[in-house]
Parts: sequence; C-alpha cells; structure tokens
Amino acid sequence: MNIDSLYSELTLDTKAKMVMIVLDGIGDIATREQKYLTPLEAAKTPNLDALAKDSAQGRMIPVAPGITPGSGPGHLGLFGYDPLEFQVGRGVIEALGLGIELKAGDVAARANFCTLDPKGIVTDRRAGRIETEVCEELCALLSRKIKKIGDAEIIIKPGKGHRFVVIFRGKGMEGPLTDADPHREGFPVPKVEAVNVKSAKAKKAAKLIADFYKAALPIIKDRKPANGFLMRGIAHQPAIPLFVDRYKLKPACIAVYPMYKGLAQLVGMKKIEGPQTIAEQFECYLTEHANYDFFFIHYKYTDMHGEDGNFNAKKKAIEDFDAALPILLKKKPDVIVVTGDHSTPCSMKGHSWHPQPVLLHSATSGSDKLKRFTETGANSGSLSVFDSKFLIRLMQANAKMFDKFGA
Amino acid sequence: MNIDSLYSELTLDTKAKMVMIVLDGIGDIATREQKYLTPLEAAKTPNLDALAKDSAQGRMIPVAPGITPGSGPGHLGLFGYDPLEFQVGRGVIEALGLGIELKAGDVAARANFCTLDPKGIVTDRRAGRIETEVCEELCALLSRKIKKIGDAEIIIKPGKGHRFVVIFRGKGMEGPLTDADPHREGFPVPKVEAVNVKSAKAKKAAKLIADFYKAALPIIKDRKPANGFLMRGIAHQPAIPLFVDRYKLKPACIAVYPMYKGLAQLVGMKKIEGPQTIAEQFECYLTEHANYDFFFIHYKYTDMHGEDGNFNAKKKAIEDFDAALPILLKKKPDVIVVTGDHSTPCSMKGHSWHPQPVLLHSATSGSDKLKRFTETGANSGSLSVFDSKFLIRLMQANAKMFDKFGA
Repeated sequence: MNIDSLYSELTLDTKAKMVMIVLDGIGDIATREQKYLTPLEAAKTPNLDALAKDSAQGRMIPVAPGITPGSGPGHLGLFGYDPLEFQVGRGVIEALGLGIELKAGDVAARANFCTLDPKGIVTDRRAGRIETEVCEELCALLSRKIKKIGDAEIIIKPGKGHRFVVIFRGKGMEGPLTDADPHREGFPVPKVEAVNVKSAKAKKAAKLIADFYKAALPIIKDRKPANGFLMRGIAHQPAIPLFVDRYKLKPACIAVYPMYKGLAQLVGMKKIEGPQTIAEQFECYLTEHANYDFFFIHYKYTDMHGEDGNFNAKKKAIEDFDAALPILLKKKPDVIVVTGDHSTPCSMKGHSWHPQPVLLHSATSGSDKLKRFTETGANSGSLSVFDSKFLIRLMQANAKMFDKFGA
Repeated sequence: MNIDSLYSELTLDTKAKMVMIVLDGIGDIATREQKYLTPLEAAKTPNLDALAKDSAQGRMIPVAPGITPGSGPGHLGLFGYDPLEFQVGRGVIEALGLGIELKAGDVAARANFCTLDPKGIVTDRRAGRIETEVCEELCALLSRKIKKIGDAEIIIKPGKGHRFVVIFRGKGMEGPLTDADPHREGFPVPKVEAVNVKSAKAKKAAKLIADFYKAALPIIKDRKPANGFLMRGIAHQPAIPLFVDRYKLKPACIAVYPMYKGLAQLVGMKKIEGPQTIAEQFECYLTEHANYDFFFIHYKYTDMHGEDGNFNAKKKAIEDFDAALPILLKKKPDVIVVTGDHSTPCSMKGHSWHPQPVLLHSATSGSDKLKRFTETGANSGSLSVFDSKFLIRLMQANAKMFDKFGA
C-alpha cells in the first residue's frame, strides 16, 4: 500500500491550527573559529528556549544524504512533496522569484543579456554587467515587439543587472530543454533541444524558443554591449497536487520575498501580502488566524547572512526572530514547528547538505528535556533524523488528524 | 536486489536462542504534569538497569512517521512483516482476540447485536448493551441453527456484552467488504459489498453474508432488545509467509491475552498455554528453552494502564516486570530485546505514533554507556531510529546468524 494513500485514508477533520516557521538556512556547523558555537547556539533566545522545554527536536534531511538543496527542493520537501519526484526548474524558480504568477504548463527560462561578435560568438556572457535600468528598458522593448509567437503568449520580465526571465505560455509544451548558453565565452549560443528526445511537447517548446530567438535578436542587434541573450534552466511549471487536497488543511503563506510566495503558490497556498518584518508577519498570523488551518511563515535573513558568511548578523537575525515570537504565541496554534529549508553555514557562505534542526511543539509532542533549540540538542531529540517530506505528517499526527491504523 | 532475499541468502544455521519481550505500549512522553518523567524513567528497575549497561538502545517506528498503529500492525511490524504490505482486518483481529484459530482465507466479521424496529430501522446500535450471558445464549442459538450455508462453514463466537464474531470458512472468498452497519441509528442495515468491485472472491463473500443475514434474522426476530445484528471490519485472514521460513528460527509465543497469541499464530508461532503472570511467563521460557529458538513474550499491563491514563499503575507494571526479569536471566538467551509494539502515553490515554524505545542485549550489542533503559536515553543510542520490521534482522545479526555480504 502506498504510504500517501494511507495518510489520506486515516485523515480526520479537526479544527487544528498549525504554524510552520521557516528560518531559511538556519542550520549551521560549529567551528573552532567561532568557539564551537553555531549562530543558533550563540544567540540569546529566551522565548525559543521556553518553547523548547516542552518540545520535541530532531534533524531533517532535505533531499538525500549529502545533497545540498536550492530553495525550490528545500521548500517542496518542507511542504511534503518528494523533491526528487516534483522537480521545479530554475527558470520556474527564477520566475517565482520575480513575482510572476505561473500557470501549470508554462515554460519558463532564466535569461540574461550577453555580448555577441558579428559572427554570433559570445564575447561577454554578462554583457558587461549592464545596469538594471538598461535591462528593464531592453525587456520593455522586447515585450512591446513580441507579444505572441503563433498561439503562445510571451512574457518577459527584467530581474537584477543583466538578468531577466521569459515565460512561454502556450498549449502542449513541457521542459526540460537544454541551455541556450555555451557556458563559456568564445562559442556561439547553442540551439535548445528537448532533454527527452521522445517528448513531442518538449520539441514544440524548443521550436518556439528558436522562433523567439529569430524574432528577438534583430530587435536588439545594434545595442551595445547587450546585443544578445542566453537562456538556461528552461522548464515547465510541474503539476503538483494541491496542499489542501493532500492534507485537508487550508494553507496560507506569510512571506516577504517573492520566491517563497511563489513556491507556496505552486502547491496552492494563499499568499497574504503586506507584512515586511517578522513581527508584522506574526501580527498578520493573528489577524488571519480564523481564516486558515496551516500557516507557512518564511524568514529570509538567517539564510542571507549565512550566505554572506556573517556570523554575527545571522545570530542577530535569530535574536530578532526570537524577540518577535511572543506575538505569535498570543494565539498559540495547536502545533508549532520551527525549522529551516536547509542549512546555510556561515563558514561555507552557501547552502549545505547538513540536516537542519527542527523543533516541534504541541500538547502531544512530549518534552525532550532540552533547554534550548540548537543543532547539538536536536541531535539527541526524539524526532531523530528524518526526511523533510514527513514533517507535515508529524504535524498532522500531533494535531490528532490521523485515525489509528488497524485494530 | 530485494532486501529480504539478501537476508535469506546470508542466513546461517546457529544454535542461538533469542527472546523478544514486548512491553505493550511501553513508550511514553515526558510532560510537565509528571515532572518531565516517563513511567519508564520514574520506575525503579534495578534488573533492567543492570542489563542496560551492556546493551544497545534506540527507537523504532512501527509503521511510518506519524502513524499510530493498532495491535495488529504493531505486532506484525515487530515480527518483521511490513504492516503496509500485510494488513489484517478488524474482524480477523477480533476473532484472534476471542481465541478463534483462523485458517488462511477465512473471512471474519466483528459483529454485535442491535435493536431493529418493524421496518428494519436500527433503533439501538448496541441492543441496550445486553449482558454477556444473553449474547452467549443468542450465539449458541444461531450456531445450532446455522452450521453451514452452501459449502461454507459458519462459526459464531460470543464476546463481551453485545459483541460477537462470525467466521465464514469456505473456498474462494476474500475481503475487505463494506460494513453491514449504518454507523448511526435511524437507518436500515446496509447490504455488504466488495470494497474492490473487481474481486469475484469478495463478491462471493458478500453474497454469503447476505445469505447469512437471511438465515439468521428470522431466528432472533422475536428477541427483545437483540432482534438484529451489525457487522463491521469484514476481512479475510491474509496469507503471511511463515516465521520459521523467513528467519530459520523455531518460534514460540508466551502470551496471556488471546489477541497476541492469535497474532503470533498468524505468522506460525507455537502458542504455549498456561502462564498468567510475567513471572510464570519467564518460568515457562525456562521450561521450554530447549524446544524453540525464538521466544515472543508479551506483557499487556503497560498498555492497559497507559490506555487508562494511570501513570502510577503503568510505572508499577514496569516494576513488576523488572522484578520478574531475573527468572529469565537464569538461562540467559544469546539475544534479549525489550521493547513495545508502539507507545501508549498515559497523557494521551491511547496508542500513539511516538517511536517506542528498544533495548538490545547480546555479546555483540556493545554498550551505549547508558545507565538505564529510557525513552530519553534511547534517543541517543547506537541503534538510532529504525523501522520495527528490521528488529528481528538486528537480533539475527547479534546472534551471528548472517554471513558477510560480498568479499
């Protein structure tokens, strides 16, 4: 019997409220340089400490041992979808990051302007890192000139610097496609092809992109240095079973950054717009408490400072979160989870594979008798090490949403 | 390669003796109300403590994260059978609980007397909770009048109060079937149907049960208040590979309660009748030591008091078990396991999904340097968290029953 079918069969209707707080990239590693303390260990977190006393802890593997996830697989795992089964291409992630609302079947490409010589050879892959304003102007120009190709709608959105995104919205297309990018200078832009040569849908998408190149290149051919463009991570938005159908929970996303709103939207969460700080996000939870069952609250700064290798700033971000926590607890949900989508160790200045710590608090979580929420404490917690994709199942169990299996 | 094939291939013939002691529902959670101690932590267990010193510990997931098992899946997991692959219906469990020896293919229904109005509407689902004696008399009457329907033998056994069990022993039948129970009053008894509409065997069983209703209802129609009956959890006894074939171990069950004897019998264990206390169960092990290789010793009271939410009684049950333990150790087996089939936290008054602690002692278990056997200690044990279905494989390894895999 399929395990997801079992969970579905056993699911009961309850009035439980659950909150999953994602401190992006929270997990870290202890090093000699930082006196063997992680930012979570070094931070002063009186409110989290109080919660930890009556909580269970453990660590989660976002994808598989040793695999470092991007934000896409990291969050899909947290939302309970196997990141190997539900893959979201970089083009899609990039589009979500720009706040573009994708539809199932949309093919998205991550693109950037480049410089081509008269023979079409790439001489600068980033077009001299043009200013965002130039990129915006070029995208506006292309958008005006190319609205449709055949039946397909073309959506072009500028990003930062030389980066932009192109969405191909038509029927019967899919990714992934090979990159229109030689990945080094001195070579021409290769034609995109279907990764799966048997997919007629991918071939259709590849043809459309070739047509897009034919239409777009003449428009910018005299622009210097941005007289060409590259495309990568070309993929379609996968059809993902809706969160509400999977869990019988009405979900809301309270995030600040577009990418996380986009990832939440992929699984059908309602985006709640407005809040800009973690305190405002918690206030927003209080306001919306009655309207949803499940709240995904995303906090970016732990990851951002981890990526910068700024230990003190990551520690401070944790303390800021902790200071705001009492707002959430004014209407304490039945189940609270505090975790990350992956680790972002300061000493590595990037995402990593280290299982992230997780804290789960409910009336039935029991206490692991740990005084604080830390990586080291989580190692000896009762939740042990488990795959992220089971986190919401454990939250549901703690909310008494599952009937007993068998007599 | 299938993992079970690998285990089989590597299995060596040894003279090892193993004992699996199942303290039913032993796992618990630490709560503020009980000063953050579980019953296992609060109990005085000098004998278990001495064993723990030279043992490995860990925690086991009975079915899957967040899934609370009944006794059926809980024990099948302990016996090494994936509870999702081998599902045992409620009717079968109920029959086992009444000590009925089922044969593979028997279809069993959990039944109870009810009250019907002249139009066949259920007016009392429990027939005013008739006395056990009345139920016994009605079952005896039905048994006398209905011995067979067509080729199928009909076996009717009374339970407690208004409850009874009906076994349909014939050829070419299977479950599961829908319930002959409206699950509320004011409705007629629905006809049972095959859950899998494509199963001819299930349709045959459904027809037989319809015939049984036609034969049985007229016999009790003038009885008040028990003039009708409901049937639920109608399923067949699944064919389960025999324990002796799977493990090359001759198994015996030393249990007091019929359901556990029945579950052991499902996988082909020999039931040893007689002992009523844990001390007597251990004495029985001493007597039977030479006759079997594997002893499943079941202790019910930890679960019973957990279900009642009686912390002190659960603690006392653990102490009673501990006091009897030296009897077993007079003929120390090569491998001893102490665990549960699932957790039954007192604060939840029922089974739960929390991984149960497990202790494994052998000459090769090593020591986890834990002074006691507790949930918190088990969290940091060398066995870590694993699925129950691997427990006997670990016992076999500790008994040096597996050859090396590969060179």
